[in-house]
Amino acid sequence: MASESGKLWGGRFVGAVDPIMEKFNSSIAYDRHLWEVDVQGSKAYSRGLEKAGLLTKAEMDQILHGLDKVAEEWAQGTFKLNPNDEDIHTANERRLKELIGETAGKLHTGRSRNDQVVTDLRLWMRQNCSKLSALLWELIRTMVDRAEAERDVLFPGYTHLQRAQPIRWSHWILSHAVALTRDSERLLEVQKRVNVLPLGSGAIAGNPLGVDRELLRAELNFGAITLNSMDATSERDFVAEFLFWASLCMTHLSRMAEDLILYGTKEFSFVQLSDAYSTGSSLMPQKKNPDSLELIRSKAGRVFGRCSGLLMTLKGLPSTYNKDLQEDKEAVFEVSDTMSAVLQVATGVISTLQIHRDNMARALSPDMLATDLAYYLVRKGMPFRQAHEASGKAVFMAETKGVALNQLSLKDLQAISPLFSGDVSRVWDYGHSVEQYAALGGTARSSVDWQIGQVIAAGAGSC
Amino acid sequence: MASESGKLWGGRFVGAVDPIMEKFNSSIAYDRHLWEVDVQGSKAYSRGLEKAGLLTKAEMDQILHGLDKVAEEWAQGTFKLNPNDEDIHTANERRLKELIGETAGKLHTGRSRNDQVVTDLRLWMRQNCSKLSALLWELIRTMVDRAEAERDVLFPGYTHLQRAQPIRWSHWILSHAVALTRDSERLLEVQKRVNVLPLGSGAIAGNPLGVDRELLRAELNFGAITLNSMDATSERDFVAEFLFWASLCMTHLSRMAEDLILYGTKEFSFVQLSDAYSTGSSLMPQKKNPDSLELIRSKAGRVFGRCSGLLMTLKGLPSTYNKDLQEDKEAVFEVSDTMSAVLQVATGVISTLQIHRDNMARALSPDMLATDLAYYLVRKGMPFRQAHEASGKAVFMAETKGVALNQLSLKDLQAISPLFSGDVSRVWDYGHSVEQYAALGGTARSSVDWQIGQVIAAGAGSC
Amino acid sequence: MASESGKLWGGRFVGAVDPIMEKFNSSIAYDRHLWEVDVQGSKAYSRGLEKAGLLTKAEMDQILHGLDKVAEEWAQGTFKLNPNDEDIHTANERRLKELIGETAGKLHTGRSRNDQVVTDLRLWMRQNCSKLSALLWELIRTMVDRAEAERDVLFPGYTHLQRAQPIRWSHWILSHAVALTRDSERLLEVQKRVNVLPLGSGAIAGNPLGVDRELLRAELNFGAITLNSMDATSERDFVAEFLFWASLCMTHLSRMAEDLILYGTKEFSFVQLSDAYSTGSSLMPQKKNPDSLELIRSKAGRVFGRCSGLLMTLKGLPSTYNKDLQEDKEAVFEVSDTMSAVLQVATGVISTLQIHRDNMARALSPDMLATDLAYYLVRKGMPFRQAHEASGKAVFMAETKGVALNQLSLKDLQAISPLFSGDVSRVWDYGHSVEQYAALGGTARSSVDWQIGQVIAAGAGSC
Amino acid sequence: MASESGKLWGGRFVGAVDPIMEKFNSSIAYDRHLWEVDVQGSKAYSRGLEKAGLLTKAEMDQILHGLDKVAEEWAQGTFKLNPNDEDIHTANERRLKELIGETAGKLHTGRSRNDQVVTDLRLWMRQNCSKLSALLWELIRTMVDRAEAERDVLFPGYTHLQRAQPIRWSHWILSHAVALTRDSERLLEVQKRVNVLPLGSGAIAGNPLGVDRELLRAELNFGAITLNSMDATSERDFVAEFLFWASLCMTHLSRMAEDLILYGTKEFSFVQLSDAYSTGSSLMPQKKNPDSLELIRSKAGRVFGRCSGLLMTLKGLPSTYNKDLQEDKEAVFEVSDTMSAVLQVATGVISTLQIHRDNMARALSPDMLATDLAYYLVRKGMPFRQAHEASGKAVFMAETKGVALNQLSLKDLQAISPLFSGDVSRVWDYGHSVEQYAALGGTARSSVDWQIGQVIAAGAGSC
Repeated sequence: MASESGKLWGGRFVGAVDPIMEKFNSSIAYDRHLWEVDVQGSKAYSRGLEKAGLLTKAEMDQILHGLDKVAEEWAQGTFKLNPNDEDIHTANERRLKELIGETAGKLHTGRSRNDQVVTDLRLWMRQNCSKLSALLWELIRTMVDRAEAERDVLFPGYTHLQRAQPIRWSHWILSHAVALTRDSERLLEVQKRVNVLPLGSGAIAGNPLGVDRELLRAELNFGAITLNSMDATSERDFVAEFLFWASLCMTHLSRMAEDLILYGTKEFSFVQLSDAYSTGSSLMPQKKNPDSLELIRSKAGRVFGRCSGLLMTLKGLPSTYNKDLQEDKEAVFEVSDTMSAVLQVATGVISTLQIHRDNMARALSPDMLATDLAYYLVRKGMPFRQAHEASGKAVFMAETKGVALNQLSLKDLQAISPLFSGDVSRVWDYGHSVEQYAALGGTARSSVDWQIGQVIAAGAGSC
Repeated sequence: MASESGKLWGGRFVGAVDPIMEKFNSSIAYDRHLWEVDVQGSKAYSRGLEKAGLLTKAEMDQILHGLDKVAEEWAQGTFKLNPNDEDIHTANERRLKELIGETAGKLHTGRSRNDQVVTDLRLWMRQNCSKLSALLWELIRTMVDRAEAERDVLFPGYTHLQRAQPIRWSHWILSHAVALTRDSERLLEVQKRVNVLPLGSGAIAGNPLGVDRELLRAELNFGAITLNSMDATSERDFVAEFLFWASLCMTHLSRMAEDLILYGTKEFSFVQLSDAYSTGSSLMPQKKNPDSLELIRSKAGRVFGRCSGLLMTLKGLPSTYNKDLQEDKEAVFEVSDTMSAVLQVATGVISTLQIHRDNMARALSPDMLATDLAYYLVRKGMPFRQAHEASGKAVFMAETKGVALNQLSLKDLQAISPLFSGDVSRVWDYGHSVEQYAALGGTARSSVDWQIGQVIAAGAGSC
Repeated sequence: MASESGKLWGGRFVGAVDPIMEKFNSSIAYDRHLWEVDVQGSKAYSRGLEKAGLLTKAEMDQILHGLDKVAEEWAQGTFKLNPNDEDIHTANERRLKELIGETAGKLHTGRSRNDQVVTDLRLWMRQNCSKLSALLWELIRTMVDRAEAERDVLFPGYTHLQRAQPIRWSHWILSHAVALTRDSERLLEVQKRVNVLPLGSGAIAGNPLGVDRELLRAELNFGAITLNSMDATSERDFVAEFLFWASLCMTHLSRMAEDLILYGTKEFSFVQLSDAYSTGSSLMPQKKNPDSLELIRSKAGRVFGRCSGLLMTLKGLPSTYNKDLQEDKEAVFEVSDTMSAVLQVATGVISTLQIHRDNMARALSPDMLATDLAYYLVRKGMPFRQAHEASGKAVFMAETKGVALNQLSLKDLQAISPLFSGDVSRVWDYGHSVEQYAALGGTARSSVDWQIGQVIAAGAGSC
Repeated sequence: MASESGKLWGGRFVGAVDPIMEKFNSSIAYDRHLWEVDVQGSKAYSRGLEKAGLLTKAEMDQILHGLDKVAEEWAQGTFKLNPNDEDIHTANERRLKELIGETAGKLHTGRSRNDQVVTDLRLWMRQNCSKLSALLWELIRTMVDRAEAERDVLFPGYTHLQRAQPIRWSHWILSHAVALTRDSERLLEVQKRVNVLPLGSGAIAGNPLGVDRELLRAELNFGAITLNSMDATSERDFVAEFLFWASLCMTHLSRMAEDLILYGTKEFSFVQLSDAYSTGSSLMPQKKNPDSLELIRSKAGRVFGRCSGLLMTLKGLPSTYNKDLQEDKEAVFEVSDTMSAVLQVATGVISTLQIHRDNMARALSPDMLATDLAYYLVRKGMPFRQAHEASGKAVFMAETKGVALNQLSLKDLQAISPLFSGDVSRVWDYGHSVEQYAALGGTARSSVDWQIGQVIAAGAGSC
């Protein structure tokens, strides 16, 4: 008799189940991570049942007490799974029944695993978003601290990986920190949509037993309740949004990792990774590899793969709950773990990174001031297009002569434009160059200070 | 001489260019869509230059006037592209020079195509988000109108595509409308991040000529300015977010389309698509195919493909501007066009769809009330788990006897549980069933009315 | 002293390692699955070293014996991991040293983990491809057996999910089986490219110690050797190909699952899933849900997500080995497990599925013969376009009159075309209809038999 | 009257069509690229109809002649599209009818657009695969030519972007060329599966009129015929495979592009891109940017996005033809164009690239010989693990002393191991180092020659 197997759907099935199918169908291997929120949700629901008159006060207390015991067993690692515990909901309810008897059978009244599982997942993710937000800000603050401390270090700014203009090292750090503040902003928005209660939606049609969803919401501290029971049990927008949030955040970190890997090559030699975040070679004794950064870069693929996978699973799915949705949890757990590790490792990398100021300074070259040379002419009244061309000619002349741009004589320059005069020598000062870029967002010291202030203010608003 | 070719970077190049490379590199075939916002951005920038003392009032007026002429030519379709116009910025500036002479060469002072193009794209997308938002709400309102008008139509609710419980047809409509309101909420958030001014960031280091970015922001009506010039010229978060927004919205529409395709099969026969949204077969004379819905479903793939492509392009990219970023625009244009068409076609489909109430009613069957039968026992005091099992036994008994669930005699039922009595007959009323689900979000009439109110309120807040 | 930590790269590092970084970097949690092939590869390599004179015969024997002990410990579950065993290669070599002493230190001569790990992975995947191929053919053969047994069952063929033409049920089964034979063909091609030996490539430059790669190839039974050491250690084409192979195979199975889910709805009622592959509802006692099929459908997303993730990780990666490549293994293991389960569950579903012949027959309707009605006119000499239009008029007339297409009187038909005569009645026989489609690949019995023969022949060639 | 609109499905529809829906549904904007193969397919089909007795010889000749006229109009650019020409099939047949009258209506006998379009697409792609194969080999041969010519140039080999071991520049070139030969092999396999005839499958059930598919196959020079009409009209494996082929090929090219972008930075200065494949900056006069390489790198995202999009569209699609499949063609056309441009630009880049031999030589440093130093000890009998540690100590000692590894005195070295003697000086010769790596696939000259031979042989087999 199937009902002897203790499955939740009881008395109807007469066939046996293929063991591979059993395993294929079972989610307990991963949804056990939800044990705490599952108990939390059930406690709130039993309060809702009591208020609706479906449990007596005594029954409710018995259930609450039993659930606390279940939680205690999980916390202490003594909870024993049965082979028939296909998911965490079944496991917890089975155990509750063993602990308190038939009253346990009242807990699921008017509830379905469809609304239960999505409530659990939202509770778990709400907490997780807060954790990730804290880790994200730890990273951002570490970056801001460095940016503040190393504000006077100049080095080459690159576009297309070609030397472009001198910039502050802090300006580079902040360019990545600022991207991460957008991730923080987005994470709060995702969390807001995670923080909506679906409990009380039943399997599809809603709850027919007078359970007060507003009470459930308050008990579980959700910000709002879902509007439609069919949608509530089958939408996974908040999961997709979270996976995409992580994907976008990872592209930021992959770009920062790429920069640092380059800056750490022998050829650039701007930075040196701490040994704690490097590894060696099993073959080549001299090697020290930036494995931490490479792993960060690579995880952008893994994380987006999960996002991609979920979207494909959702595509064209008939409405309401289908078992396809079971794919949501492993994606969330894996991506959460990855983000947590990546953010911490990135913080470690940034806080222990050494910079080679001398190499940075040496890498600045006069041709990077060609733009400033054009601006020199602009300030003397030449339209920018002509000034750009004149400066280009100077670059070409210097290359042809095999000298640095600042080694051209005044006569050379005047052959290009009569507007050049002795004060052109002031162009060749890198410190003077960066200070010109004083418009908000530029690389001048005042702007860097302003940026630091803006990021700190964003952080204050987020936590 | 390369400078004769009229390329923006003038005076330096001496080699020739491979024609395939020319075409590969050129973006004018698609970025010409930006003509209007490019002019708009340049007009604001020339005002900024004038305030900074880099243009005289007369020069500014000359430029403004010239730019208006350029815009007029585009609007009237008389703008002639040159073979050397590799992008819209080059084209417009080249034309401006033809129209007003050397003063045109002052417009680009302190500006780079790096900050120019991203300003243009943000202006275009800001406008586009508003258009899509309006189309989205047209669809939602059409759905809400139907939901209101057809509130008393009942039909089967499905989970796992198996008949589950009776629900209101309006409840189904609203389940999709509610999902779309989340898309509206997200679109506003994306638009908020689109609406940030990068102009004044130059190529990488910022602006050194005293241009007031706050003035530029106000001129172009942006909500804020970007914080860091390196980030501003190379981040495409707002593009990735927009593409993901569209992807998630499309999964919603693909699920609604899937439902309607099923409901429109001969086997379900709940709905009939208007001829205007159907097509026939070149071979089979009797066919009438739901091509509109199939295309909507399929576009979820196309749109997400663009999102996927952009994320992969961004992964591991060194910081600041790289030509790889040129991939952003075609993705945005194609996805915007697709969304615009999909939203309008979906609105047309929903507003002309016929429903077959009789078939809907006929499809309700007593076994869909098995849950209510269990609740009957719960109300008589039986714990839900036992009630669920008892109801399961009744289902099994009816199947074995080959009768409908409501055809079991009271005696039959009492053999399962003595709690059954004559009042069980009230369970078999579908109208009564749905009215039980009165908790917020359920399928009772009061809840459906509440949902309609909530969606309308969300709409009022969004537009 | 770092060298005391027992890390492979010995004597150089002086810093400590962040525990989160340790875990982030470590792969032992999953690459332990490679224990057997790692030992296999090391045994072959020690034979190569002996032949090259780098090991004496006695040393080789000592190593071979030690490696057998290592394997034995893994097989018996007694292998103990150390905290410093960051990957399977380190673990096995560490243990070997404990077992046989310093001679173990000769095993890695001229080898790098870069060529070792990819050799291991190829060995594992080669074996795995064979297993999956066998499971795939078990599924195909189950389908062919059904197709053969149920050849005389007719039911509606659908296009656009609208009833199109009568077909054989076997024709539907074979349409999916034929798709799977392409998957089999592709899997063999992937396996051919998996089956290439990289060992002897070292870290990047190759092997300098006279190791004979042809001997290694023969020892490990590879089909060929890699051509270039830089490519050999860093290309993961065979992984990407495998993941894509699985993705495409899963889209086939997702489409078959979708069909069966629809055919198993109350509305279609063509098939009934065995209880062994269904599950019930925790709330609704009457429900029996096709969870097995829904999970199969959903896994298409998960599997493609892994493919998507790997491609993104590979994009733009500098050449040769980078730690990013460590992402390959978890993807391979997860996808292999998923495919194995999916293929077995699909086989179980197909072999236990019940079909409802009566419902299938009842679902055939005369309008599905409208194409045949047009062909009737074609055979009487009317150009097809006119015949198609005439048949369309008949369909319209029948709809207007509210009768079935075959209920139109001869007079009615003759009002449309004088070519109709008494013999038109033969058109209305479904059995006669399908037998007309006798061109190869059609739904006639002879063609179905031919298809079965073709698929069986393909299977004979593959195994 | 709808039949007046000239739509293929004639006489049934009575409603009007929404213009946005018309455009949404229409494919003529892109499937017009199929005009030539559509005519080709129709010509073959009319021969099949004649053999089956459905056309007289005279009718066939009339149709063939008419189709030639249609093709001529397309070729000469005089073909005029009508607003009702929703796709290329409709357009061509409509025009044929205008040219030859009612006989044109016989051409579609027994054919459906379902089998017609997929025949067209396969014909187009077969040709396109040949074109891409030729372009791919042009690139590979260019690379091999360079590899042959510059065989004696040494430069640093990198792993993890850290200097690893000295290698030949040709070895690097060949590492990418060898990857492309796998792409060539895969393209042939894709083409083999493209080259299968679906014509004669009708809409779903096959062909009932005695059309000889073997004759059609021979007429159109296909390698085989499809096995099952339902599968034939709705499977798009060959499209998915092609898109994935392109994606994998692009990841190879993205990795080569990434290397060259790095090697072309000021910091590496190993290579210099020709001006023909570079562009300048609109702001910075000194800049010369590797836009060609950046675009190649970025297209990996775009191409994979299309693959990703199609797979998502296919996921869970009910079997046989659904309009969703219309998404296939734009993906194929766009990806084909992209691949064609990318392969040609890459060939141009490689053939015009300058290398800086002096910089390459200067970048070799003694620490890159630390592995060889360990091998020196191995050859003296020390187990590799000890030798690796000893060499590591030497590296550490040199770093501590601030000297190059080859500047350590013999006494220094002997303090690490007594096995060091005077002959250690031979280790410090880069030319000697690379020649050690003589195992097949290594960086020795003999191995590089062997690789060149292998690639040339593969090319001979492919074309």
